[in-house]
Amino acid sequence: MARLVMKFGGTSVADLEHIRNVARHVKREIDAGHEVAVVVSAMAGTTNQLVEWCREASVLHDAREYDAVVASGEQVSAGLLAIVLQEMGVTARSWQGWQLPILTDNAHGSAHIVEVNGADLIKRFKERREVAVVAGFQGVHKETGRITTLGRGGSDTSAVAVAAAIHADRCDIYTDVDGVYTTDPRIVPKAHRLEKIAYEEMLEMASLGAKVLQVRSVELAMHKKVRINVRSSFDPPDAPHSVGTLICDEEEIVENQVVTGIAFSKDEAQISIRRVADKPGVAAALFGPLAEANINVDMIVQNISADGRTDITFTVPVADYERAKQVLEKVKSKVGFSALEGAADVVKVSIIGVGMRTHAGVAAKAFKALAERGINIRAISTSEIKISVLIDAAFTELAVRTLHSVYGLDQ
Amino acid sequence: MARLVMKFGGTSVADLEHIRNVARHVKREIDAGHEVAVVVSAMAGTTNQLVEWCREASVLHDAREYDAVVASGEQVSAGLLAIVLQEMGVTARSWQGWQLPILTDNAHGSAHIVEVNGADLIKRFKERREVAVVAGFQGVHKETGRITTLGRGGSDTSAVAVAAAIHADRCDIYTDVDGVYTTDPRIVPKAHRLEKIAYEEMLEMASLGAKVLQVRSVELAMHKKVRINVRSSFDPPDAPHSVGTLICDEEEIVENQVVTGIAFSKDEAQISIRRVADKPGVAAALFGPLAEANINVDMIVQNISADGRTDITFTVPVADYERAKQVLEKVKSKVGFSALEGAADVVKVSIIGVGMRTHAGVAAKAFKALAERGINIRAISTSEIKISVLIDAAFTELAVRTLHSVYGLDQ
Repeated sequence: MARLVMKFGGTSVADLEHIRNVARHVKREIDAGHEVAVVVSAMAGTTNQLVEWCREASVLHDAREYDAVVASGEQVSAGLLAIVLQEMGVTARSWQGWQLPILTDNAHGSAHIVEVNGADLIKRFKERREVAVVAGFQGVHKETGRITTLGRGGSDTSAVAVAAAIHADRCDIYTDVDGVYTTDPRIVPKAHRLEKIAYEEMLEMASLGAKVLQVRSVELAMHKKVRINVRSSFDPPDAPHSVGTLICDEEEIVENQVVTGIAFSKDEAQISIRRVADKPGVAAALFGPLAEANINVDMIVQNISADGRTDITFTVPVADYERAKQVLEKVKSKVGFSALEGAADVVKVSIIGVGMRTHAGVAAKAFKALAERGINIRAISTSEIKISVLIDAAFTELAVRTLHSVYGLDQ
Repeated sequence: MARLVMKFGGTSVADLEHIRNVARHVKREIDAGHEVAVVVSAMAGTTNQLVEWCREASVLHDAREYDAVVASGEQVSAGLLAIVLQEMGVTARSWQGWQLPILTDNAHGSAHIVEVNGADLIKRFKERREVAVVAGFQGVHKETGRITTLGRGGSDTSAVAVAAAIHADRCDIYTDVDGVYTTDPRIVPKAHRLEKIAYEEMLEMASLGAKVLQVRSVELAMHKKVRINVRSSFDPPDAPHSVGTLICDEEEIVENQVVTGIAFSKDEAQISIRRVADKPGVAAALFGPLAEANINVDMIVQNISADGRTDITFTVPVADYERAKQVLEKVKSKVGFSALEGAADVVKVSIIGVGMRTHAGVAAKAFKALAERGINIRAISTSEIKISVLIDAAFTELAVRTLHSVYGLDQ
C-alpha cells in the first residue's frame, strides 16, 4: 500500500469524457489498495476565459478579485471529478483551497503556499478509504480569508505541497507528454525518455525551456523531498507502473550519465556593451537601472580588459529587449561606452547533468563539436551542473542535435 | 442616508456590458450617500451549463458536489462586478457565502439560510464606504464547511437574508420587469404596475404563477420585515427612486384596494374521483399514497354526499398528472370508487387582495361575471385573501380579462 498524489492538468480534464478517463486512472490506484489525493487544474480553456473577463472588466483589475474569479475553474473540475468517481463506486470528496485549507501568503495572482493541512485527508483515507479531490492552483490567505491563486502552472505546486503535507510516497504528475526527454523530440527524433532525473537537473531543464513542470513545483519537491513521477494521462489506465520519468534525489539514481539532457530557450535576446571603462562600479551602473525596470539579466560575460576598456555581453528576455536597450541608452553618457549592440535572433542551448561535477572536459567537448559544425558561440555561462552557450537562432536544431549525439544521448 | 441591498439576476449580469450597467446603478446609490450591499446571480446561462455538466457526470450526482460546482457561477459574477465597481472609482469587495459567512442547513441543492453575519459588512460601510458584492444563491453548512446552494431563484432569498442581517432600509430586487402587475400584461394590456403590495398578497401572486420572486424570499421578507422593491435593471441608472413595486407590510399601504391582482397558473391538472364512499379515512386513503409519491395536491373540493357516496376533485402539478393517475388506479379497489376522471387542459385563476378580509361579496361578483361569459367553474377554493377557480384552459384570457375589469383594476 502506498500513498499517492495524482495531478491532472487542464487538457486531462477538458470535458467529461476526459474526466472519466482521469477517474479510471484514479480507480486503478484505489483498486491496487493505495491511498489517493488527486489535484486538478481547471478544464482547458476555462482559465483563459475567466482571465479574459477580468481584463475586460478592468485593465488594472484588483488581484484579490481576479483570484476569486479565476479560482472558480478548479472548483468546477474538482466537483465534477468527485461526482464521476462516486459514479464509479469510488468514495470521493472535493476540497477547495479554503476548505483544506491550503494557506498562502498575500501575493495575489502568484501566491506562495505557506502551509497545507493534510491531517483531515489522512484521517479520511483511513476511516473511509475516501479519495480527496483537491482544487489545484488556489489557496486562501490566512489572515484576510481571501482566495489566492499560485500563478500559471500553479497546480503542479499544489500537488507537490499536498504530497508533502500527507507524506505521500510519490506525486504522479499526469501531463500530455509521457515523461521528461533528453531533449525536445520534435527537434531530435532520437531523443528518449529519461527514467530518472535529479531535482537539480530538472530545475535546469524546466527553467531553460523544457516546459513540463512549473519551476516552483520542482524547487518545492527538492526542498520537501517529494518524489515526482511525470507521466502521460493518455496512457491506458492499465499501463504499467514504470512508465514516466521519476524526478528524485540524485542519490536515488544509480547509473549517472555525465550529461542528462540538452535544453534550449529561444526566449533570450543578447545585448553587448562595447568599450566600457573597466573600473569598479560600472557593472552596477549598467545592471542597477535594468533591475529597477524589472528586467531579468542572464548570462553576463565580461571579456578581459584591453587598454582599460572592456566589452560586456548579457542576455535579457526577448520581451524586454527593446525596453532594455532604451534603459541603457539613457545611462550611456553617465556610464560611458562606445556602442550598444544587440541581437534578438539568438538561442541559449544548455548541456545539463549532475555528472559534470565529477567529470572534466565536458565543456571542451561541446565547444569542439560546435566549432566543427561552424557554429559560432556568442557567449558562454556555466554552473556546477550546466553549460550554456548563446548562438545564432538559425543553428538551433543543428546545435541541439550535435550535442545530443556527442554526449551519447542518441538511442 | 439609507442602507440598501440591491439584487441583480442572471440576465442583468449576462456579460460585461450588462455588469457595467449594474455598476452604474450601484454608483448612483453610492453617490447619493447610501450604504450598499449588492447580491448577484450567476451570468445568464452559466448555471445551466454547470447543472448540465453535473448531469453528464452522473444522473445521481452527490448533492454536495453539485453545490460546489454550481456555486462557482456566482463567484465569477461577484468578482467581476467588484472589479468593474473599482474601475469606476467605487470601493468594493466580493464575498462568497463561506466568507461572510451565510450559514445554511444541510439540505444541499435547496438549503435554508440559518444565519447571516452582517457585522463585517456594516463595519466596512462605516470605515471604508465599501460596497459589499455578495455571491447570491450560495451558503456554507456550519458543521461540515461544505458549500450549499439555495435552489433555483435562491439569490432573491440571499438578498432578503443579507438585508435582514445588515438591517437594510430596503431590498431592491432588479429584474427584467419593472414591478409587480395587477396581472400578466401580455394577456391584459390594461394591467398596471402596483405601487405597493402586501407580503401576503405577493406570496399568493408569486406562488400562483406571477414568476417575479422566489416564494421563499417573500416569506423571509414578511418574517424579517424586510421591505422589498421590485424594479427593472433596464431602467436608465438615473431613473427616479419611485419606480418599481414596494412589497411591504399591509399597514404601510394606506389606500387598500379590495382586490390587488389576478394571478393564473397553467401548471395544474384536475383529477376527479367519482362516487367514492363518504366515510372517515377515505381522504387519507386517496391522498396518503399521493404524498408518498411526492405529489403535491392543491384545491381539494368535496361535494355534499348523496346516498353515502360523494365526488372528490383536486389538482396536481401537470408534470405529475399521469403519475398521480397511476397511483390512484392502484388503490382503486381498496378505496372503492366508480371512476377516475381528469383533465390537463385546465387553468387556475386567482383573485387576490387583503381587502377581502373586510369586504363581503367578492367571490359572488367573480362567479356572476364568469357565468355571464359562459365560463364553467370546475372547482373553487378560497383563503382569507384569495379566491381560486379552476376553469378550462381555453377560457384563460377571457376569464383573467373579465375579472381584471370587474374588480376595477383596468387603468
